[in-house]
Amino acid sequence: MTMRNLQVLLASRPSGFPTEADFRIVESPVAQPADGQVLVRNHWLSLDPYMRMRMNAAKSYAKRAELGEVMIGGTVGEVIASRSPQFRAGEFVTGSLGWQLYALSDGAALRKVDPAVAPLSHYLGVLGMPGVTAWMGLLDMARPEAGETVVVSAAAGAVGSVVGQLARMHGCRAVGIAGGAVKCAHVVQELGFHACVDYKAGRLREDLERAAPDGVDVDFENVGGEVLDTVLALTNPFARVTICGLVSQYNATAAYPVRNLGAVLVNRIRMQGFIVSDRLEVWPEALRQLAGWHAEGKLRYFESVAHGLENAPRAFIGMLRGENLGKQVVRLSEY
Amino acid sequence: MTMRNLQVLLASRPSGFPTEADFRIVESPVAQPADGQVLVRNHWLSLDPYMRMRMNAAKSYAKRAELGEVMIGGTVGEVIASRSPQFRAGEFVTGSLGWQLYALSDGAALRKVDPAVAPLSHYLGVLGMPGVTAWMGLLDMARPEAGETVVVSAAAGAVGSVVGQLARMHGCRAVGIAGGAVKCAHVVQELGFHACVDYKAGRLREDLERAAPDGVDVDFENVGGEVLDTVLALTNPFARVTICGLVSQYNATAAYPVRNLGAVLVNRIRMQGFIVSDRLEVWPEALRQLAGWHAEGKLRYFESVAHGLENAPRAFIGMLRGENLGKQVVRLSEY
Repeated sequence: MTMRNLQVLLASRPSGFPTEADFRIVESPVAQPADGQVLVRNHWLSLDPYMRMRMNAAKSYAKRAELGEVMIGGTVGEVIASRSPQFRAGEFVTGSLGWQLYALSDGAALRKVDPAVAPLSHYLGVLGMPGVTAWMGLLDMARPEAGETVVVSAAAGAVGSVVGQLARMHGCRAVGIAGGAVKCAHVVQELGFHACVDYKAGRLREDLERAAPDGVDVDFENVGGEVLDTVLALTNPFARVTICGLVSQYNATAAYPVRNLGAVLVNRIRMQGFIVSDRLEVWPEALRQLAGWHAEGKLRYFESVAHGLENAPRAFIGMLRGENLGKQVVRLSEY
Repeated sequence: MTMRNLQVLLASRPSGFPTEADFRIVESPVAQPADGQVLVRNHWLSLDPYMRMRMNAAKSYAKRAELGEVMIGGTVGEVIASRSPQFRAGEFVTGSLGWQLYALSDGAALRKVDPAVAPLSHYLGVLGMPGVTAWMGLLDMARPEAGETVVVSAAAGAVGSVVGQLARMHGCRAVGIAGGAVKCAHVVQELGFHACVDYKAGRLREDLERAAPDGVDVDFENVGGEVLDTVLALTNPFARVTICGLVSQYNATAAYPVRNLGAVLVNRIRMQGFIVSDRLEVWPEALRQLAGWHAEGKLRYFESVAHGLENAPRAFIGMLRGENLGKQVVRLSEY
């Protein structure tokens, strides 16, 4: 074989927002699978906010990316050569094979997916890690009851868009927070949230009070900083605050000073951080339910698509700046 | 009867630390019990940090004190006249009868106590609300496992002193935080904590790292502000942070800006605020266990005693400044 691999490496650790110079694109030959391995051609790459944290030197919840290594990332692709009894060439798999066109894997962390059930890229979104994240953080952890108000930040994003739709399906008032009028219109009109607050409009507190007139029972937090601080001030007794992400802080050179933590005591809040990969045992049930709702048309799904691995760094930086609508993916092939 | 009652009223809402001028002491005749009521002579009054929050106009977890009303507070005393079939004169009861020498009650919230089992004042501490608070927040909510490190602030206080002893009894490393060398020596030598950090020494972070070399698995938070922020930075994955009190904030005119909340995500922390009165159903079991350990001498208990209702305001202000060692009570009679 003379196939050439293309890879995006971490070239330097960003201070503040990453730039394209923090990434390096390299070509290399594609290796052949050893015994027990498969060779996968990646068709789609997922871009997610958590990747920003892994670019830092500081410890985080997952192994940090090392300089000169391939960027970590979720993928969906096709087995093109197999020396594993568990996979055949032509099967489609999703996993975390990184920012590259081809990857070897022992198959342990690959999950077979069916392009006849849903478009391949959906397995990186509503039928993959972001969907399970929404399901786990909302239904398994926060456990909203009908009639309660659920607020979710980054509401137009891959996770937030599912959170709000699940909240609405469970009889809750779904209130989104998103950046800009276009996203807010999308969140209400396309995703069916009851309300959406544009945090860029500069009236976050007032607008949120209007959007959640009965107070906040569940906060599904993707953003942190001022957004979290403001929502805390509007919580009801026994509110649940699920900390899924703090994307406003990932590029910040100084942490936002949170002043409303007293609400945790006054309202007996349960605040809990989580990582979807900590509890792999709930994934099958979450994926089963998500696939059902998706197939029934109850769970709508939108993507922002970048084209070509070379454009992944730019798309990633754009996503951190909130330029995407829905799940940000990179199309790596003409599949 | 010609008995005169003495009462401490809330005269004004303090800004910052209360002063004695925020209280007013009044005399009034003692009323006779109506049908179904008892008249109680209070022998001991409990002084607790939560009372400071109730002096504010802002909403908190409990009903605020109103200007001109008797200050709210836990008491233990003696039934001196009864028109209730449930109580006889001469019985001892604990309840929340306020900063006064005599009080009428319908008995619904009174609990009979036995001065032969423990000194009456202990029912305001280790065998009362503070003890149950420690038990509930630590054993029922944080659920530490043997070998874990438990940090508790206000470690020499009524709640903190019990928390650390319970942690040690459950095989944990018990680390206290307290103000001053005298308190820290007490916490280690008298209460048996493994270590105690003097936050007034000005090296909180370094000293805490030394006292908790394996990181923090459970934080039982009584203080908040800088203490909480520092402990957050030292948490281990899956730490539990139980927010019982935020006494550093009760008198603050501006909230402390917490900067290490990112640890909640990175370490998948469960942070939960609680009020001991929310779950009255666990009190009997908690009191049963506490009384057993107390009787066996496993649970040591210390008090700071003020004498006379007139001195309650000064003792309360002193407690907020951390001048007490152990549970702060006021002796109201010669009993």
